[in-house]
Amino acid sequence: MQHSVVSGYYEDRDPVLVAVDCIIFGFDQGGLKLLLLKRRMEPLRGEWSLIGSFIHRSESLDEAAARVLRELTGLSDVFLEQQHSFGAVNRDPGGRVISVIYFALIRINEYDAEKGANYEVQWFPIDALPPLILDHEEMVSLALAKLRRKARFRPIGFELLPEKFTMPQLKALYDAIYQSDLDRRNFRKKIMSMGILEKLNEKERGTSRKGAYLYRFNREKYVELMAKGFVFEV
Amino acid sequence: MQHSVVSGYYEDRDPVLVAVDCIIFGFDQGGLKLLLLKRRMEPLRGEWSLIGSFIHRSESLDEAAARVLRELTGLSDVFLEQQHSFGAVNRDPGGRVISVIYFALIRINEYDAEKGANYEVQWFPIDALPPLILDHEEMVSLALAKLRRKARFRPIGFELLPEKFTMPQLKALYDAIYQSDLDRRNFRKKIMSMGILEKLNEKERGTSRKGAYLYRFNREKYVELMAKGFVFEV
Repeated sequence: MQHSVVSGYYEDRDPVLVAVDCIIFGFDQGGLKLLLLKRRMEPLRGEWSLIGSFIHRSESLDEAAARVLRELTGLSDVFLEQQHSFGAVNRDPGGRVISVIYFALIRINEYDAEKGANYEVQWFPIDALPPLILDHEEMVSLALAKLRRKARFRPIGFELLPEKFTMPQLKALYDAIYQSDLDRRNFRKKIMSMGILEKLNEKERGTSRKGAYLYRFNREKYVELMAKGFVFEV
Repeated sequence: MQHSVVSGYYEDRDPVLVAVDCIIFGFDQGGLKLLLLKRRMEPLRGEWSLIGSFIHRSESLDEAAARVLRELTGLSDVFLEQQHSFGAVNRDPGGRVISVIYFALIRINEYDAEKGANYEVQWFPIDALPPLILDHEEMVSLALAKLRRKARFRPIGFELLPEKFTMPQLKALYDAIYQSDLDRRNFRKKIMSMGILEKLNEKERGTSRKGAYLYRFNREKYVELMAKGFVFEV
């Protein structure tokens, strides 16, 4: 069913379709990952896609992004941030479709991808993605560039880590985001000098006999320091 | 004339209208300003608006923004950066319209607003804007917040200044962006210590008998320093 789009002044305009595509980054021991969906329907059946669909007239862009993510993956209560709208004329051969992309960072181990109802969703390492439909690879590149820019000056990484984490885990996260291998000692020194990490009297024993101390991000301290002009930088 | 929007898989979807709204910041001796348009047509005739209109099906979002800006103000060759899409369901009482906002920084004295053809456009000081239509005030707030964030870590201010400028002009620009009154000496010290300004052997005589030295932003030097991990910060 199509609705009447326009009235009066708006009559002579060109209606188009608007879609949302969600770029969901996750992190676990295997590194930085992206959640993808295998398309069940034609066109492009069986191909890998971002988590996306068309918006409804009765919902805002933000509401559409949350609904599409929930319907296709079972994920809810995820903080989705709008990033960019893709509007090339022929980006979708099926029609004139503008796509608004949203991105989110989640902890993989808090999400059970199997719950994704009838849809096949899968985490892929960021450096081993399958070919994606339409302009979705370009969308991912843009989101990754943004993630890197943000990670440098804001402590967003902690949204991807468990509440308590070890120094090697934190370094592995930044290595994964930057696709680099930061110097272990410099990294530790830099991050500790900011005074926003709390060293706990607790060790993680899973990875070595000696164990590694656990840390926690002190958000209150960060907010307090920010108000004084402090700039987080990794 | 309306075009057919959809085919096949796309048939059951809800078409909507998409508009672009351009937020044009400028700077001159009078401070930071915003370019606004007085609407000539109903609805909302005679009210102040951002520089906006609907996209055509045959143009990309970026092309639409450039065309709308050119048609309504006469401005061309402006670097427009897409910022955010506004998609609340009832943001426009005339129909379901998604608006994609773009913003640009220009030098006011290089633009003759009178050239704006049949449209009435006017520069308003950022702290004395008239009431704006629809959600345009919210759009301006978002763009201003972004301008402030960007100005802190990237030397974007130089896009608003003449090629050669004095230290008081540069400080006035940052004062206008931050709506603050930075300390003159600290500001000078901070900005000069970055090594990206070239002091010229030339004075501006307009404002005082003694005159003020002119400076130029050295973009090559900035790019060179950036590559070494330098971070601009004001």
